[in-house]
Amino acid sequence: MLAARRLRRPAVRRVRGQFLVEGPQAVGAGLAVGALSEIFVGSSAMSRYAALLDGAGIAVRVVSDDAVASLSETVTPQGVVGLARHPNHGIVDIEESRLVAICLDTRDPGNAGTIIRSADAAGADAVVFAGSSVDPFGGKVVRASAGSIFHLPVVTDITVDDAVRQLRDRGCRIVATTPLAPRDLHSAADAGELDGPTAWLFGNEAKGLPDSTVVSADAVLRVPVYGQAESLNLAVATAICLYASARAQARLGSGAKDAGGGGRL
Amino acid sequence: MLAARRLRRPAVRRVRGQFLVEGPQAVGAGLAVGALSEIFVGSSAMSRYAALLDGAGIAVRVVSDDAVASLSETVTPQGVVGLARHPNHGIVDIEESRLVAICLDTRDPGNAGTIIRSADAAGADAVVFAGSSVDPFGGKVVRASAGSIFHLPVVTDITVDDAVRQLRDRGCRIVATTPLAPRDLHSAADAGELDGPTAWLFGNEAKGLPDSTVVSADAVLRVPVYGQAESLNLAVATAICLYASARAQARLGSGAKDAGGGGRL
Repeated sequence: MLAARRLRRPAVRRVRGQFLVEGPQAVGAGLAVGALSEIFVGSSAMSRYAALLDGAGIAVRVVSDDAVASLSETVTPQGVVGLARHPNHGIVDIEESRLVAICLDTRDPGNAGTIIRSADAAGADAVVFAGSSVDPFGGKVVRASAGSIFHLPVVTDITVDDAVRQLRDRGCRIVATTPLAPRDLHSAADAGELDGPTAWLFGNEAKGLPDSTVVSADAVLRVPVYGQAESLNLAVATAICLYASARAQARLGSGAKDAGGGGRL
Repeated sequence: MLAARRLRRPAVRRVRGQFLVEGPQAVGAGLAVGALSEIFVGSSAMSRYAALLDGAGIAVRVVSDDAVASLSETVTPQGVVGLARHPNHGIVDIEESRLVAICLDTRDPGNAGTIIRSADAAGADAVVFAGSSVDPFGGKVVRASAGSIFHLPVVTDITVDDAVRQLRDRGCRIVATTPLAPRDLHSAADAGELDGPTAWLFGNEAKGLPDSTVVSADAVLRVPVYGQAESLNLAVATAICLYASARAQARLGSGAKDAGGGGRL
């Protein structure tokens, strides 16, 4: 347990090649792709998760409720935590690259997790966290990803310049987002500019993208603001851009197909 | 101060017709529309907010840092809190109704605030929180709204049936969102179905919309999921729907115009 508890630290996760996932949804998603090696469950939560644990096919360790809570980073521990292999993905591990999100210096764990979840839903091929972004394998990010951390490559430990260069080499058009861009997302979509392979660049919550990154892109767009809001939440803006790409690509039949149904709204 | 502190309780906000807004962004947004009656600032935060407070034109009470922190619902108090008039808006207060979000039983304050912010950005005319939704005038919601709580009517204390009936009477087509809908958002947009006045219906984070509400709508759509995600975050799904409407209406020139620039990404 002490060894698992240490995984709450980013450096330990990296060195050991493991991370923790909490709650039945994330544990189920990890099991579904064979990414877990062990599950910790609190003694009083055992019966609640019987169906999940019966089919796990890996070691399930029943520990005290306090012990499993000590692995948690949330205020309401859910009593079940999985030990997952850290994929340590690089750009080279992205299979196709029709739609990729590059996030520079994302600081809020909730935003990072929601971006992973939305990218998954939009059929993106990967999410890249560049620069000094929060570690996407931390507890709060994993939780906000709602299982999507296991569904697509999440690349870390890369500079934004390297991410841009490598994704351009793989055929992506690099589109930077900034509210000062003269052109908006919708007119670019109408002009067919989002039909091809696209890597979107998103900046930090407070500072946006640095000028040096904006000028390195092939195009610069803004999400239009029709009302009086100063800006959009980063995760929301990211989802709107990725869905604009998904819509354009789906219409051409070049992107992923809508799975239809599933999930809740 | 004790009177202000009591405003952290929803019932007190309603009875007294006041609510608290925290941080320089929200205080600035409230001042801009003349919605504040008083500002509390911590003594050590005075100089930091000199520009904001100099132009306030209302009473500024310098109190101890602890006192202003006691008004805060956040873990990192920002040292400045405004006392705002609670608008107590009803459907009747919505000026135009080309684009409205009706949220049923929204529970998460961060989602509620982000929905208000996105609705503002999409040029929506109002947000309605129906049923047992979180009080949108609570501290966490106001903070997540990033000032947008002052930019459009936020209607509370209404059943979803009443909201649907009144908005339909005002000419809105009622569109319910559920992941089981046979038709998706993008095909509806392509077919021109989002061109007219629309009130979107969004359900609870975990349970979605009840069947009785879904069948009361004029149309039922899903946000397409192209990847393996089970669902989208509620605030993200809401923003994608509202932006699809905004795009359709802006193209026809019937909706609000993109303000261009402003904000960050």
